[in-house]
Amino acid sequence: MAVITIIGAGMMGSGMSRPARDNGHEVRLVGTPLDRVIITEAKISSRHVPMKRQLPEGIRYFQFEEVDEALDGAEYVICGVSSFGVEWFRSEVIPRLHPDVPVLSITKGLLNQPDGAVKTFPEYFQEALPESLKGKVSFSAVGGPCTSYELMDRHQTMVYFCGEDMAALKQFQALLTTDYYHPDVSTDVLSVEMCVALKNAFAVAVSMGIGLAEKLEGADAYMYNPQAALFGQSLREMGRLLKLYGGNPDFACGIPGAGDLYVTIFGGRTRKLGYLLGLGKSYAEAKELLAGVTLESVVIITRMNIALRELAAAGKIDLADFRLLRFLDEVINQGALCNIPWREFI
Amino acid sequence: MAVITIIGAGMMGSGMSRPARDNGHEVRLVGTPLDRVIITEAKISSRHVPMKRQLPEGIRYFQFEEVDEALDGAEYVICGVSSFGVEWFRSEVIPRLHPDVPVLSITKGLLNQPDGAVKTFPEYFQEALPESLKGKVSFSAVGGPCTSYELMDRHQTMVYFCGEDMAALKQFQALLTTDYYHPDVSTDVLSVEMCVALKNAFAVAVSMGIGLAEKLEGADAYMYNPQAALFGQSLREMGRLLKLYGGNPDFACGIPGAGDLYVTIFGGRTRKLGYLLGLGKSYAEAKELLAGVTLESVVIITRMNIALRELAAAGKIDLADFRLLRFLDEVINQGALCNIPWREFI
Repeated sequence: MAVITIIGAGMMGSGMSRPARDNGHEVRLVGTPLDRVIITEAKISSRHVPMKRQLPEGIRYFQFEEVDEALDGAEYVICGVSSFGVEWFRSEVIPRLHPDVPVLSITKGLLNQPDGAVKTFPEYFQEALPESLKGKVSFSAVGGPCTSYELMDRHQTMVYFCGEDMAALKQFQALLTTDYYHPDVSTDVLSVEMCVALKNAFAVAVSMGIGLAEKLEGADAYMYNPQAALFGQSLREMGRLLKLYGGNPDFACGIPGAGDLYVTIFGGRTRKLGYLLGLGKSYAEAKELLAGVTLESVVIITRMNIALRELAAAGKIDLADFRLLRFLDEVINQGALCNIPWREFI
Repeated sequence: MAVITIIGAGMMGSGMSRPARDNGHEVRLVGTPLDRVIITEAKISSRHVPMKRQLPEGIRYFQFEEVDEALDGAEYVICGVSSFGVEWFRSEVIPRLHPDVPVLSITKGLLNQPDGAVKTFPEYFQEALPESLKGKVSFSAVGGPCTSYELMDRHQTMVYFCGEDMAALKQFQALLTTDYYHPDVSTDVLSVEMCVALKNAFAVAVSMGIGLAEKLEGADAYMYNPQAALFGQSLREMGRLLKLYGGNPDFACGIPGAGDLYVTIFGGRTRKLGYLLGLGKSYAEAKELLAGVTLESVVIITRMNIALRELAAAGKIDLADFRLLRFLDEVINQGALCNIPWREFI
């Protein structure tokens, strides 16, 4: 039995408590300042209100002011913040980490570099380690098709833990593997993390096919050829992007790419955004209907297109190879409506 | 305007009449002996009874006895028979073909060779040409995500025409491209045809996840992680199979592989079979519920496993790389129930 401290009590951070508790570990769940109400309620009733589910028994709950207590004696840390919380995690949590306590992050996304390169969150966190912790704390990340609800409900789930520290990866794998949660491990962080990020972008594209079907033939139309074409084109471009950045395209054609794209289309706000665009709404209208929330998918679409333009300007790529990803940018950032350029896909 | 004769008036053969007529070609639709009732009704009312749709206006209909009349003056032939009709097509139709009239086939599948190799239907047809037609008739094939209903309803559809005769491919592409039907062309017949065949096999696997969800949590359960894992594992194994046979795994991670797998899961009897198995039925029970019909997916699962065993016996592969495809064989041919070996997937 180990002591695992999860920092970030949103959906996926909290979801990770399920395999951890099922394996008998001590779990300490720490809310960020945004999770105050979640933690307050969980302390009273063990209920996770946004997830509409009971949390596992035996978890100890902490508000962020109590984070040092929660980290004291912890053997493993899980970072449960979304990509919008990474700067906060970097400045508020990383300085408090302890040596020889590895971190596994559920954060999805990529950071752009000025030259069109990308940076993964494990790299971004690593850079922020104070001198006293350098070389003593490793950051790994989770990729692959896993919704928090389903992890909480113990549905069969195959994911990847990726990072540079194979020993830490194997420890997390041993800690969290259950008869329903099956993490594989890989040191190819770039490939896994690019899939994690890109699947959000392309899920908008495939979900456009759902809205398009409803627009043309009403709800419950039997109309899957367009979605299938968008799905195939998404994976083509995802594979090309992996190759472009020196990754292994096999990940696109597997659990982290295709598998995660598949599950992302079935629910959540990214699907909703694509659906609304497919219905014919502008991005401005869709964003209003989504209560003004900026989605991770939108950030990825925007960032990847900035990177592509830089790479094209340097003569390193042919933009025609990324027609779907560029089309997403036209819709999100240039006011275009959802007129899918089918004939331009190669 | 060209004269196109479609032989085989089932769903997909008939579906091809839509882009052909929309482009103004003369279309002659010839029923096989199994399509007698379809043709009789179509001659009266232009209605395709099994498809529950009106056929395009202006088609000329022929019973098979009238096939020579239908081929007289035809500039292009589309073979519209399923894989269960290929022997019939080979013996009854191929001898009647005319020189310089290329054939495009919608038949899905692969044939096994005794040494574990596979043969595509274009090759199989080519071999049967009489001496007088050798080198004068080319066979191409269609792959990619396209249901016949949706083609008939003019839904956006991206497919591949593949064959060795690029001139013929480009002719068919020019003949049939519309603002909703987008055929790309490729001379990599093996890769496209392997995707066409294998997606049927793996669609059984992913559809098991649908039945499994219903068994565990009732209809309309939100349960996609298992499907996503099966989808990702399917593409991993499909990519490996393409590599094994000297094909290009990019096709698995694109329109013919992932795209076609995606659409196959959403309907039809292959989905139904996987769903029933996922519910916990044996294959014998599922087959009874499917009115005793042997599906193309079952043939492919069986044939590919015979091939894999031969290749493994010759020391050419590690069977562990194909755990999902082997599991499908255990369920279909060895009486196993749907206990998915999640931990053995690599």
